[in-house]
Amino acid sequence: MLPVVSFVGRSNVGKTTFLEKVVAGLKQRGYKLAVIKHDVHGFDIDQPGKDSWRFLKAGGDVVVLSSPDKMAMVSRPEQELTLEQLTALMMDGVDIIITEGYKGEHWPKIEVYRADVSDKILSPQNELIALVSDRRFDIDVPQFDFEDVDGVVQLIETEFLSQPSAEDIHLSVNGHDIRLKSFVKDAFIKTIAGMVSTLHGTQDAREIRLTIRLP
Amino acid sequence: MLPVVSFVGRSNVGKTTFLEKVVAGLKQRGYKLAVIKHDVHGFDIDQPGKDSWRFLKAGGDVVVLSSPDKMAMVSRPEQELTLEQLTALMMDGVDIIITEGYKGEHWPKIEVYRADVSDKILSPQNELIALVSDRRFDIDVPQFDFEDVDGVVQLIETEFLSQPSAEDIHLSVNGHDIRLKSFVKDAFIKTIAGMVSTLHGTQDAREIRLTIRLP
Repeated sequence: MLPVVSFVGRSNVGKTTFLEKVVAGLKQRGYKLAVIKHDVHGFDIDQPGKDSWRFLKAGGDVVVLSSPDKMAMVSRPEQELTLEQLTALMMDGVDIIITEGYKGEHWPKIEVYRADVSDKILSPQNELIALVSDRRFDIDVPQFDFEDVDGVVQLIETEFLSQPSAEDIHLSVNGHDIRLKSFVKDAFIKTIAGMVSTLHGTQDAREIRLTIRLP
Repeated sequence: MLPVVSFVGRSNVGKTTFLEKVVAGLKQRGYKLAVIKHDVHGFDIDQPGKDSWRFLKAGGDVVVLSSPDKMAMVSRPEQELTLEQLTALMMDGVDIIITEGYKGEHWPKIEVYRADVSDKILSPQNELIALVSDRRFDIDVPQFDFEDVDGVVQLIETEFLSQPSAEDIHLSVNGHDIRLKSFVKDAFIKTIAGMVSTLHGTQDAREIRLTIRLP
């Protein structure tokens, strides 16, 4: 499984600014990163009159712009995509996914906290792996000052990037995630990896991606 | 296979404007559309200071913004993504992919032509399925005026959207497309569709999407 760590916290505690620095720190250590921001209020990315805006306005459900060094996709899903569905879209070669938001999903969380915004931590204790905060709490997770970006980068590296990742599989049918029990996972992975290994050009397979369309 | 049709033509013949109308026409007939624009010169979608721009600038390789009704992904691939790789990213439920550009790839093409821009058609005859033009050529494909958007929409519907699509599979390993011979395709589809059909929640599977990560 690609490791996922979520930066959560209330509005106006400075999540985006802190996360920006963490991204730069991880990048400097040579990792390939995906950042997924959950924006419940919606966002503007299309500029009126630009091609992506024109094709969406005309009725495109998904619009992609692709150039030699950049790809952008904008879509209007009928239902909000889950973090798991977004994870499955990630390109080959990403080492870790860092999210801003998704406090309601159950991935490991680093909470960003400021005493003048709230007096309580919002993450469940069993999901919290660190706190970035301007005060100290009596809790059993590492706590970092806002200046200690490097400490947080180090923690992420140690926890999520030092061990080789285990094998994993993600399956969706008609756009819905299908949860697999671990022996089923194992059967799928062994069968499919076995079939793929008989094909030319599949040496050192680290990521196998299959899309099947049925009539 | 998801049907793909490419609108090609020289610069300044009005491809985007014509395509916008075709998208609106297909939408009106109830189809779900993906539009992929090939922009060899690059494009700007991020506005300086916005979150997606900030995370890319900080070093994110892929940045996603997700809200309840919209998803945007911007990435910087090491190599330009092929149309086939982009096709594999498409969400469930899209009926057809329409591209602007990709004249070098071998999908069915509708060329948009204006006599004052060039005196020759640029598409190979065996890939050309229609011409949108302000003059008539002595060639054996349907030719449409710029005003006849509906004629083009009707042609796309008849050629690509009227028959149920055949079953198909797309496989990539470590981000590279693997071409499958048809008996191998058949073996993969039957095996995997068979395994998936034993799971709960997989009735009426039209699209199976699998991502396997190996250590």
